[in-house]
Amino acid sequence: MKLSTLASLLSLEFLGKDKEISRLNTLANALEDELSYLDHSRYLDVLKSTKAGAVLISKEHTNALPGGCSALVTPTPHLSMAYASAYFATPLASTTGEPARVDPCAQIFPHVYIGKGAVIEADVTIMAGAYIGDNAYIGEGSIIHPNAVIYSGSQLGKRCHILANAVIGADGFGYAHTAQGEHIKIYHTGTVVLEDDVEIGACTTVDRAVFGTTRIKRGTKIDNLVQIAHNCELGEGCIIVSQTGISGSTTLGRNVIMGGQSATSGHLKIGDFATIAARGGVTKSLEGGKTYGGFPLVLQKDWLKLQAKISKFFNTNKENK
Amino acid sequence: MKLSTLASLLSLEFLGKDKEISRLNTLANALEDELSYLDHSRYLDVLKSTKAGAVLISKEHTNALPGGCSALVTPTPHLSMAYASAYFATPLASTTGEPARVDPCAQIFPHVYIGKGAVIEADVTIMAGAYIGDNAYIGEGSIIHPNAVIYSGSQLGKRCHILANAVIGADGFGYAHTAQGEHIKIYHTGTVVLEDDVEIGACTTVDRAVFGTTRIKRGTKIDNLVQIAHNCELGEGCIIVSQTGISGSTTLGRNVIMGGQSATSGHLKIGDFATIAARGGVTKSLEGGKTYGGFPLVLQKDWLKLQAKISKFFNTNKENK
Amino acid sequence: MKLSTLASLLSLEFLGKDKEISRLNTLANALEDELSYLDHSRYLDVLKSTKAGAVLISKEHTNALPGGCSALVTPTPHLSMAYASAYFATPLASTTGEPARVDPCAQIFPHVYIGKGAVIEADVTIMAGAYIGDNAYIGEGSIIHPNAVIYSGSQLGKRCHILANAVIGADGFGYAHTAQGEHIKIYHTGTVVLEDDVEIGACTTVDRAVFGTTRIKRGTKIDNLVQIAHNCELGEGCIIVSQTGISGSTTLGRNVIMGGQSATSGHLKIGDFATIAARGGVTKSLEGGKTYGGFPLVLQKDWLKLQAKISKFFNTNKENK
Repeated sequence: MKLSTLASLLSLEFLGKDKEISRLNTLANALEDELSYLDHSRYLDVLKSTKAGAVLISKEHTNALPGGCSALVTPTPHLSMAYASAYFATPLASTTGEPARVDPCAQIFPHVYIGKGAVIEADVTIMAGAYIGDNAYIGEGSIIHPNAVIYSGSQLGKRCHILANAVIGADGFGYAHTAQGEHIKIYHTGTVVLEDDVEIGACTTVDRAVFGTTRIKRGTKIDNLVQIAHNCELGEGCIIVSQTGISGSTTLGRNVIMGGQSATSGHLKIGDFATIAARGGVTKSLEGGKTYGGFPLVLQKDWLKLQAKISKFFNTNKENK
Repeated sequence: MKLSTLASLLSLEFLGKDKEISRLNTLANALEDELSYLDHSRYLDVLKSTKAGAVLISKEHTNALPGGCSALVTPTPHLSMAYASAYFATPLASTTGEPARVDPCAQIFPHVYIGKGAVIEADVTIMAGAYIGDNAYIGEGSIIHPNAVIYSGSQLGKRCHILANAVIGADGFGYAHTAQGEHIKIYHTGTVVLEDDVEIGACTTVDRAVFGTTRIKRGTKIDNLVQIAHNCELGEGCIIVSQTGISGSTTLGRNVIMGGQSATSGHLKIGDFATIAARGGVTKSLEGGKTYGGFPLVLQKDWLKLQAKISKFFNTNKENK
Repeated sequence: MKLSTLASLLSLEFLGKDKEISRLNTLANALEDELSYLDHSRYLDVLKSTKAGAVLISKEHTNALPGGCSALVTPTPHLSMAYASAYFATPLASTTGEPARVDPCAQIFPHVYIGKGAVIEADVTIMAGAYIGDNAYIGEGSIIHPNAVIYSGSQLGKRCHILANAVIGADGFGYAHTAQGEHIKIYHTGTVVLEDDVEIGACTTVDRAVFGTTRIKRGTKIDNLVQIAHNCELGEGCIIVSQTGISGSTTLGRNVIMGGQSATSGHLKIGDFATIAARGGVTKSLEGGKTYGGFPLVLQKDWLKLQAKISKFFNTNKENK
């Protein structure tokens, strides 16, 4: 879409050279055909070196734009980005375009939907009722179980197992907010990559990235009813037990273990070989190689000690009875 | 069904005038063609002004019935209501009746089921494998994602997004209990209403009301793997993060935020603009405009202080080591 | 498969008589045509009386094998069992074999998949998009709701209700681990049995046993988004509220109640008529007839007292402010 057209659709002032915009991206990653946004002055440094073709930006910061970078001027760049995202959203399912390429050695059961441009490699099994979105890639030997949903553009490696009713690549939970308290959907134009030998439990959800990629690395195993939010990255060989929730943009190293019903906040880094006990609630980045538990989270052995002390103190201290 | 027929099916004594009964309802809301029940003497006041055509009631309370109100006499009115509910249950899916009305500007993908009497408005997209029950209404511009299930009678406003494998309108978790510890299913004859611009995440469940309506108001956004129980009401513009559970008949005001893995008990009221931090467990009704956290729930800032104090006290107090 | 063939596939030394092996099982339950494994010396006693046809065993323990029991010698019996399990896995879905037997009084909606050898009894309703795996058995009067998935071999009693998008009989979350931190899938060759009058909520998952049976007894009711792991046994008339997680091999007695978002560790026993309050986290076996809560779990009344004491102490003790 022409930048001038977008400016007109969003009723925004447009500064600089007109150009073709293909998609949205972050300031750090955007290229010449991409639109980005500056939603806080703390990113002015990043703005200086952005390669974005254009930026949604407030009037006061337009002088900080690098040469050749056009601007859409808006008092609310994040909100304008949300409105803009609707114009760049991946179509949910096309009725036109290249047909899917299904290897003759793949086994496709009845009632399966395979979108345009999808690729199904050899020895893949797509069980009944499964959904494979447009341009999804299902690597050799993978099994998509009944009624699982793989949204468009998701990329699965070899020998992945996606259990029944799991959902890979739904839009993440991201909104911009108006002054009136309305939530404007940010269409997620990123994707999900599952590397080889990843297993995803029944009714587990792995959201696509807002931009870029939600990535689950080789050999990671995820149990049932787990939530992996947009832009997470899980290292190789992680074990994520049932009903755990990992918030957006959090990164796990390799062989991280998260016990049942544990959770993390967003934008954290958890080091290699860290273990989170069941119910542990992670709100800060963690060094690897240790076992943590509790909420607030501490070392698991300290949590056990603390609970024992609390119990002892209050059950033996008369004044407090 | 004739009241006399129902009495005979349930083997209950029948007092008063025979009449046609169309459904069950609460004492407060029941009309002349509806059957209600009195399961505790604290509702005798409500009984006095009920407009119900008939009431399931214990012998001792029959003298409190308003004039013209018939009775089915039972030592266990709640249990009898559960047995009766089976006779008034909405059929799961009819094979007869009016065909669905699908707007020519709606897009229906393969393997979709659309029940009798359903209405699909213009610019709706029903993606592959989705299920639209009898008499469901899908408002203009809404998108039902792959394999999502919209049970019969559910009403969706305009521009709703129901993500993959979400379930709208399943029966709530309600049972009456026999003296022998058996649980007798209460068929839920109420419905679900999602107003305009509501979004429901993947694998999220929103149960239908036992009677009346589970309602999610305009612009509320719900993340993945959330449970909304029967008869809840969520105000406009709420944000409900992943793996949260809201118990039956709880009411949220407008723009309430519930963080990940938070929860509420049933029959509570949470005020406008309240925020519940991640993992917060609400067991009492809450004033709006404040941020709460912890379990037991307190103000979030007090929870943070309390946890800091606990940590400091037990880690510095030798006697407790 | 011949034991000698399996030895060759796994590159293991083979001792004793060659024989036909049909499946894997525990030392205690294995029969002459079954292969078991000894993964710790604490099970040497069980080994002595095993009826297994052969055992995966480390060199040092081969002298403890009972007469007539063959051996596959391996330094890592549990890991070798995982590799072996792939050869005995139930096929996901056969395209050959006996057709399903569907009672003429069953009602089968469109887009349903029914596997080979499945049995659908009278008055069963299979709603649109549901999946019934090979050799599954659906007892009289049961209802399989839209897009629910019943994996191969699952056995459902009479009048069971499986709500939309629930998953019965997916493989449990079980892996053996290599020295390099890779997780090798243990194919689960056990099954799931739901007895009469069991109800399973929307998006709830009940995993099949690794060997033997995950069993939910008569009249137990399970809410939405619950996880029941492999080899659990739930007694009659239990009530399991939404978002609860029960870990592998845990046994509940009859009429156990588990509140919302509660959980148990694995391999526990919870006595008859025990109640776990919402959010309760069970890490030890529990006597029946009592109400527990908190995490660490105590009697619910003690948890309430403890929380009150904590609050009082830290809010009135100046030194700790």
